[in-house]
This record gives sequence, structure tokens and C-alpha cells, in this order.
Amino acid sequence: MLFGGAAMRIAFQGAEGAYSEAAARRAWPQAETVGVETFDAVFAAVAAGRASHGILPVENSIGGSIHHNYDLLLDRDLPIVAETELPVVHCLLALPGVRKEAIRRVFSHPQGLAQCEAYLRRMPGVELVATYDTAGSARMIREGGLTDTAAIASARAGELFGLEALDTSIQDYKDNLTRFVLIAREPHVAATPDKTSIAFALYNAPGALFKALSVFALRDIDLTKLESRPARGRPWEYVFFADLGVGRDDVRCGRAIVHLAESSRWVKNLGSYPRWQAPEALPIR
Amino acid sequence: MLFGGAAMRIAFQGAEGAYSEAAARRAWPQAETVGVETFDAVFAAVAAGRASHGILPVENSIGGSIHHNYDLLLDRDLPIVAETELPVVHCLLALPGVRKEAIRRVFSHPQGLAQCEAYLRRMPGVELVATYDTAGSARMIREGGLTDTAAIASARAGELFGLEALDTSIQDYKDNLTRFVLIAREPHVAATPDKTSIAFALYNAPGALFKALSVFALRDIDLTKLESRPARGRPWEYVFFADLGVGRDDVRCGRAIVHLAESSRWVKNLGSYPRWQAPEALPIR
Repeated sequence: MLFGGAAMRIAFQGAEGAYSEAAARRAWPQAETVGVETFDAVFAAVAAGRASHGILPVENSIGGSIHHNYDLLLDRDLPIVAETELPVVHCLLALPGVRKEAIRRVFSHPQGLAQCEAYLRRMPGVELVATYDTAGSARMIREGGLTDTAAIASARAGELFGLEALDTSIQDYKDNLTRFVLIAREPHVAATPDKTSIAFALYNAPGALFKALSVFALRDIDLTKLESRPARGRPWEYVFFADLGVGRDDVRCGRAIVHLAESSRWVKNLGSYPRWQAPEALPIR
Repeated sequence: MLFGGAAMRIAFQGAEGAYSEAAARRAWPQAETVGVETFDAVFAAVAAGRASHGILPVENSIGGSIHHNYDLLLDRDLPIVAETELPVVHCLLALPGVRKEAIRRVFSHPQGLAQCEAYLRRMPGVELVATYDTAGSARMIREGGLTDTAAIASARAGELFGLEALDTSIQDYKDNLTRFVLIAREPHVAATPDKTSIAFALYNAPGALFKALSVFALRDIDLTKLESRPARGRPWEYVFFADLGVGRDDVRCGRAIVHLAESSRWVKNLGSYPRWQAPEALPIR
């Protein structure tokens, strides 16, 4: 697939069958995908040119923002050029023929285990083993021929590693949707951007946030997200992450950011990109 | 200890040696503490009178807000009557005489495992086992006499269950501070309240948050926290949690909340309480 005129190769954290890979394949089906071990390695692969793009989960409709990835977006200078969303549907996967009663251990990423806590509590006596990714858990069961172990991972991971689903959609909250951003070296976008992500820090003064938000309200710019999070190393001091319903081609966008900078400790533009439109019939793969 | 004129019995989630118990014992040293299995059970114990108070972690300086507990504060009608903070210092604990080289498995709560990810990655080949609480992991090692297993838990859990620390302060971020709130059946507080926690939901309109925050800015009320989080079951719709630097005895507090209600879908007062003052020399126990 072409994106800004070049073939796409998207780096994602995890093994084949990971949710990040599924999100990339669903939104950009012609792109090549390459798994790396950590989120830092996603940024490194893009910076070094080993991948044209990187995909990162940034927000979950149940768990909220993924702070570590927002930190990386702030620290590194790689712009957001697109966004996408993926429903998270966890399955309990085991080798074919294994019955649920035979399961003594469950492998998954700590977040996978935490998102299925209510379901797992109904499997008393089963040992929960934390791994570095959900799809890797499925692979470990296949490679080890483990007949007393199940993995919590996607249906896609089950297909890839020849496991069968003992149960599907086992996450505590059914409405579990993850938002991903696509990063690149250059801010080239595939369509006219109509959304912009920024981060800013304020001086500690009463009404500071009110003044900050006035720069958007006065220009009728919609805020589609506002999240405060503790600044690292300065407990209970907050950095704000905001999504604006306006692209960089709109003159109000630049003006609002310049205006915001007047009363902020710092402001950083994380990227301007087209808003994700979920195609109803898009398969989750 | 007396609090609002009665002896305190504080329910916490977890086993003896849990961080919640440590926070309660540090802030209210004369109180009795009682461990229960879930956060829901903390609310149930207070509602039924089996405990006078309950303690809940609500925010971590690294990980952000603990959404599930904010949901419970919203759903149940038990007011916040105090707050406290505790530094989180994770240790790698094992039976006396066990050397780090002999460790093949590490037990902890998924959050404990996630908070020590960088440290654990330097122990290749070690199996990570998720449990329902950090202190319970330490107890399992003692009770099972497990000489190939370590737990990630507090130094206090190590003392309680006769384990030794192979390493201390192994969390990825050293500045890891957790904020807890104390809930009760009645809004009686031990000193004049000067802080108030509220939650509110807005109609989806440009400038809605700006208007909402104006009710505080116009009255010179400081916001010490503002967090947006996705509304359950309505992806990407946001509920806001705010802490106001003003108590219920201040006439501006009630006026601002009434004013806020004019333009909000709903507003809920979660409680008015004295701001926590960290005594420098307080031991972490």
C-alpha cells in the first residue's frame, strides 16, 4: 500500500497475532508488518528507517490512556500521521481436544489477565502466568505442546498457532475498544488532517487550565479528549494531553497553539492527521 | 484511635502486608485493619457496618487513576472523609538463604509485575506468575516452602512472612507514590475539610468543558486534579473527576457545584475532607 507516496512497513510491539498487528492489518491491509520487542523499539525502528511507520496503542475505552506511550510520543520527535481503533476481544485458547476442566495454568500479558479478572476468578486453583505478550502466550503453548495450559489472546493468535477457543469474548467489559496512533519520520498524511494531538504543561496557578482552554473555546475548536496525568518525577504536577477537532491546515489551529504557549510552561504538537472513520463492515483480523 | 467520635476499624483490599494496609496503619496508627478480597467488598463491609471505614487506592503518580475504584465511588453512596499517600517500594522477597540465581518463578499482582518490568526483563528464563495480591504472594512462598520462587511485595510483607529481600526498590520508576481515600457511612471528618472531590458529565458540545471550569475560575477555586475518563459502555464519551481546593464549609464550594449542575448532564459530590499533609518523618510500615 502507498502512504505519502511510499510502500508501508509498520513496526508493532509484540509477536505475530498481537492486537497492535491486527489493528495495523485492518486499517492498512496492504502494509507489511514487523514485530519488535518493546514500544521503545517501535520508535527506534522508525527513527532508523527499518520501518516506515510504527503503530502504538494510546488509549483504551475501559482502562484509559496508556501513559508509557504518551511519554514516548513526548520524548521522541516522531509525528502522529494517522489513528485507528480496534475492538479488543479476548479468547481462552488451548490445543485442539483439550477440555476446559484440564486447564491448570493460564498464560497472558498482565493487562490481558487483568482485563479478564472476573472470568479467571471463576476458574479457582488455576495458576495465572504473566508473559510479555498475548500472542506469544499462544505460541508458547503450541511450541511446548502444553495440554494443561490455556492462553488469553485474540482469535487471530489462535488461528496462527493452531489453538482452539474454549471461550470467546471473556473480557470483563464487552465494550473494550483500543485506539492506536501511527507514527512516521515525516508528518506526511494520506488525507487532509482534521484532528491534532498536543501536550502542554501549565504553571501552578488557580484558573490556569481555564485560561488554557479559553484559547480553544474562543476559536470554537472542539476538544475531543483532555487527559491530565502526573508529570514524571514531580508527583501530583500534571501534564495535559488534548486532541483538537481541527487540522494544521486550519488557521485557527496554529493560532490557538501559539496563544496557548503564552501561558504554558511548554506546548508540544504531537501531530495533525485525519480522524479515523470506522468502516462498519471491516473484519477484525 | 477516635475519628468522628468512634473507634476506627478500616477495611482494605488484600492480605496482611498489602500496600493499602500499610497506608492505613501509617495514617491512622491506632486503627484496627481488616483485609477483604475485593474493592467491592471494602464498600460492602463499610455499608454493612462490619468496618467503620474503608481505604481505597485511587491514583498512582506513575500509572494514573485507578478507574475501577472511581467507578465504585460513583456507584455507591459512601462519602470520602480523608485522604493519605504512600510511597510504593517493591522488594524481591525469598525464603532466607535462597540466592537470586536459584529463582525460577516470581509471584505478584499483575500491577506489581508491570511496575517492575525493566527489572524482571533482566531475569531471563524466570516465569512470572500473577496472583490476586502482592502480600498474598509472599505468604504463598512461606506456606509452600518454595525455594525456587520469589515474590514482589512490600518490605512489610517480607517481615510478616519471614522472607528476605534479594533486592529492594526494584520498581521501574523510583518516584512511585499512591494516593488513597478513606470512605465511611457518614460524612464526618476529623478536621475542617479544605478539599472536595466531585465527578461530572457534560453534554457533547464545543466549549462545554471550558464553561464547566468557569464555575471554579470565576470563584478563584483551585483545581488540584482534573481527569477525564471514558464513560463505561459509551466509548470516547468522557466523565470528569476533579479535586477542588476548597471544603464544604466554604460558601463558594456549594455555589460552584450548583452552578456546574446548570450545564452538566449530572454532578456528584464524592466528599469533602482535610487535605493530606505528609509528615516527613512518618515511617512506612
